[in-house]
Amino acid sequence: MRSMSRKAAIVGIGTSGFSRDFGKTELRMICESVRMALDDAGLVPEDIDGMIKHSDEAPDERAIGDSMGMGNLTYFGDCRWDGAACGMVLRAAIGVTSGMANYVVVLRAFNESSGRRTKTSMRDIDQLCTSDLLQWGFHVPYGHMTEAGRVAMIVRRYMHECGVKGNDFGWVTTVCREHGARNPEGVFHGQPISIEAYLKSEMVVDPLRKLDCYEATDAAVALVITTAEKARRLKQRPAYILSAARTMVNGTEEKNGLYGPEPGALTETRRMGERLFEMAGVKPREIRVAQLDDAYAPLVPMQLEALGFCGKGEGAAFCSGGDRIRVGGQLPINTSGGSLGEGYLRSMNHVVEAVRQIRGTSTAQSEDAHLVLVSAGAGGPSSGLILGR
Amino acid sequence: MRSMSRKAAIVGIGTSGFSRDFGKTELRMICESVRMALDDAGLVPEDIDGMIKHSDEAPDERAIGDSMGMGNLTYFGDCRWDGAACGMVLRAAIGVTSGMANYVVVLRAFNESSGRRTKTSMRDIDQLCTSDLLQWGFHVPYGHMTEAGRVAMIVRRYMHECGVKGNDFGWVTTVCREHGARNPEGVFHGQPISIEAYLKSEMVVDPLRKLDCYEATDAAVALVITTAEKARRLKQRPAYILSAARTMVNGTEEKNGLYGPEPGALTETRRMGERLFEMAGVKPREIRVAQLDDAYAPLVPMQLEALGFCGKGEGAAFCSGGDRIRVGGQLPINTSGGSLGEGYLRSMNHVVEAVRQIRGTSTAQSEDAHLVLVSAGAGGPSSGLILGR
Repeated sequence: MRSMSRKAAIVGIGTSGFSRDFGKTELRMICESVRMALDDAGLVPEDIDGMIKHSDEAPDERAIGDSMGMGNLTYFGDCRWDGAACGMVLRAAIGVTSGMANYVVVLRAFNESSGRRTKTSMRDIDQLCTSDLLQWGFHVPYGHMTEAGRVAMIVRRYMHECGVKGNDFGWVTTVCREHGARNPEGVFHGQPISIEAYLKSEMVVDPLRKLDCYEATDAAVALVITTAEKARRLKQRPAYILSAARTMVNGTEEKNGLYGPEPGALTETRRMGERLFEMAGVKPREIRVAQLDDAYAPLVPMQLEALGFCGKGEGAAFCSGGDRIRVGGQLPINTSGGSLGEGYLRSMNHVVEAVRQIRGTSTAQSEDAHLVLVSAGAGGPSSGLILGR
Repeated sequence: MRSMSRKAAIVGIGTSGFSRDFGKTELRMICESVRMALDDAGLVPEDIDGMIKHSDEAPDERAIGDSMGMGNLTYFGDCRWDGAACGMVLRAAIGVTSGMANYVVVLRAFNESSGRRTKTSMRDIDQLCTSDLLQWGFHVPYGHMTEAGRVAMIVRRYMHECGVKGNDFGWVTTVCREHGARNPEGVFHGQPISIEAYLKSEMVVDPLRKLDCYEATDAAVALVITTAEKARRLKQRPAYILSAARTMVNGTEEKNGLYGPEPGALTETRRMGERLFEMAGVKPREIRVAQLDDAYAPLVPMQLEALGFCGKGEGAAFCSGGDRIRVGGQLPINTSGGSLGEGYLRSMNHVVEAVRQIRGTSTAQSEDAHLVLVSAGAGGPSSGLILGR
């Protein structure tokens, strides 16, 4: 299991920043981010022979490769599910360590605010898989039709099991916005909120308030991954991949553990964490900074528990007051602001921020950030990373 | 580059066979094939912790995993492009060799004859990528709208460069049908054709005749891949993966090398072959059987040249009369019948047949089939395998 540990590294990062309307195509945003990531690493397009993108990406490898002059790919492909961010890095890492490519770009772009959202495509129902329709048939007739609605159900179960109240989640958003306020790339730069503002935020799907939920944004990210050996010859301090994992559990759906084995817990995140810590050979208490899936605020305390950062039912108390989870605390989370305080790119910005922490270049830099964990896709197919210096 | 050689193996195969109308959903066909592949390997669903599928697959990992009781996946994802077959095996192989999973199923199912074809989906034009629309804008206005039409263009260029005539391709289909006639799983079982019948076949897109082109079928395939070490403890003789490669070249599209660097050659296949032979440490003349992309017959002689089995311009002569390429010849090709003589599942059946040759269980078994090559995706994003005993 430890065979891949420290054999690959993230050596370049490029970001568009976040906007509510960039006014650029996704292809252009991707190309600009790839260019930044290559410059950051000290590479040129001709060096790139691998590309991993998300299935939901608008432009394909051919369009991106042609536009960027990356003309000879030997390793390429997609990753699916919203929780794929760290899975894309995993795939790039095993691509370079197995000799399939030398330098792999991992990229994602989405004009989800100004453009079209993935989930609103007008697909012909005949095209949908029978098994999807059957699955949806269990909850759609009851009005259970949105991601927030599905998350609200598992959060309600969690609250019931652990005696947590809805207002207890407020410190997650408050701290994410506090970190995001310091980050000029985010849409909430200079816009912290108080816990009082959170408590006044309207309820959208009980127990989720508006400020518990991410806001759609436009953004693009590119990463460059290579072997540890090649990484040492490049421009930046390498962010070594100590472990990477992806998990999927029988019965769950995306952001929907309701039919899974433990509706009030995050089974996938728990199993992913076990693999991450075993593969990296580290313990939860050694992690210095965590970038957690905060698409919905209550998922943060649930992940803190599932990953072993605190005991079952103790996540909300861990976040309470914000002292433990803000920079300088016991386990600073989402130091770029994350989905709630920077913008929403399905955890790709969380990976970038993990690299910044390793490098020491975050706008909310944690001292001694030599081990950073990323957790994506809470409440469904999950993926995670532990990065180290 | 040789780091992955002989470290993984294909240990189980399951097939639905081919039909023009199976009357089953793709999910059911997949599940039946997975069950067969598990039985073949001597495994149970609980053993499976990885799944690689094609992006065009109707059911997703969740639907398949739930239906089959494969409940704890730690490695999963999609591969795109029609030429992905060997790329899916590659991805499974590096997944098991890097410790991401123990046993990975690779699967594909398509009711392309009785159901919906990939390429006929009624997508809203707004959903299409700007770069796709721009790309298509170069040829669609000129009536250049079908895959056969795109292939016809590169074949015409090849004929011009190499002084080959259209009728020279007839032995490819004739031999594929000869092999396919022996295969009870194929749609052309017991239906060989003569070279005379080929020459009477109607022209569909000059220089392609009807019998040069694959026919859409219904089919499903599942493979099980694990490490070489685990493979030795299972039921079947392992088909060791000596090398696996995928290639994509600037300017090409799927089955369209027209804008690529060498319009009359198969650049991707050539580069893929170089990687395959280097990684496996073998020479083209050592390969005993080849399963080549025969979606369109002329691609076969073009691949024979691109892979170094004969010199530039000699491919059609190599196939002429059929003696070199039929079982018992110098390099038997497509011994199950392939796309032209068995059915069309985008080279997944070619991989299965390569495994059968390694095991010695083909209905057109080659003596001494200890090294078998598979080439998929000719004329676009390509992938290939060399399997060995």
